[in-house]
Amino acid sequence: MFEALDHIGVAVAELDPAIEFYRDVLELPLEHRETVAEQGVEAALLGVGESHVELLAPLGAETPVGKFIEKRGPGIHHAAYRCRDVESALEHCRAAGLRLIDERPRRGIRGSLVAFLHPAATGGVLTELVQPAGDH
Amino acid sequence: MFEALDHIGVAVAELDPAIEFYRDVLELPLEHRETVAEQGVEAALLGVGESHVELLAPLGAETPVGKFIEKRGPGIHHAAYRCRDVESALEHCRAAGLRLIDERPRRGIRGSLVAFLHPAATGGVLTELVQPAGDH
Repeated sequence: MFEALDHIGVAVAELDPAIEFYRDVLELPLEHRETVAEQGVEAALLGVGESHVELLAPLGAETPVGKFIEKRGPGIHHAAYRCRDVESALEHCRAAGLRLIDERPRRGIRGSLVAFLHPAATGGVLTELVQPAGDH
Repeated sequence: MFEALDHIGVAVAELDPAIEFYRDVLELPLEHRETVAEQGVEAALLGVGESHVELLAPLGAETPVGKFIEKRGPGIHHAAYRCRDVESALEHCRAAGLRLIDERPRRGIRGSLVAFLHPAATGGVLTELVQPAGDH
């Protein structure tokens, strides 16, 4: 069902210093930067092998990532698995009885289609299914 | 410096139900299971692409993973990056002024060599450097 660990999402208070750390100290190339208004974040993707680190800075305190940082501090926010067909992967999870956040896939970063499973269904791990856009 | 997102470490209260979830529902193959006494965990590796999900069940409440679960509940515990030479990667991080947990690499799961950076140095993300054993 899953082809790769697509990315880890990391909640950060400010995007620029976090990019500098991952790019300049850990030497991961910055591949993409985008404001994803639907998710309330300014985000950056840095590459590592077939995966990415997705840095997520909240657009406001009342966004999901803003609330996450308020409650737990900055840190790993979610794990994302890459699939060819997010619709069928989501249907597989629904059929397995998992609690979902997204009943249908929605637009994610860089033209991807994404759907989140509820952490209550996955042992506390906010889990994302990702179908990248065709050109990634 | 890093070749891949080697794994995410996921803290779980009990190993067997977590293995069943990742193997039977998310369809990740179980590759390895081991008690890593030095880290106070019983652990399992499930494969996804070039990466793994490392499930970590604490051997006791006073272990690092036991304390993590007590404080934050089960969930993503750390992120690990794969490198060819953990000694030089650790030296790179030391030279960059990062606070380290491990001053020298130590033995990890499945014969790997590992070293942890302190989350205070990495925006709240407990970060592991991993040099796999030669046959993995």
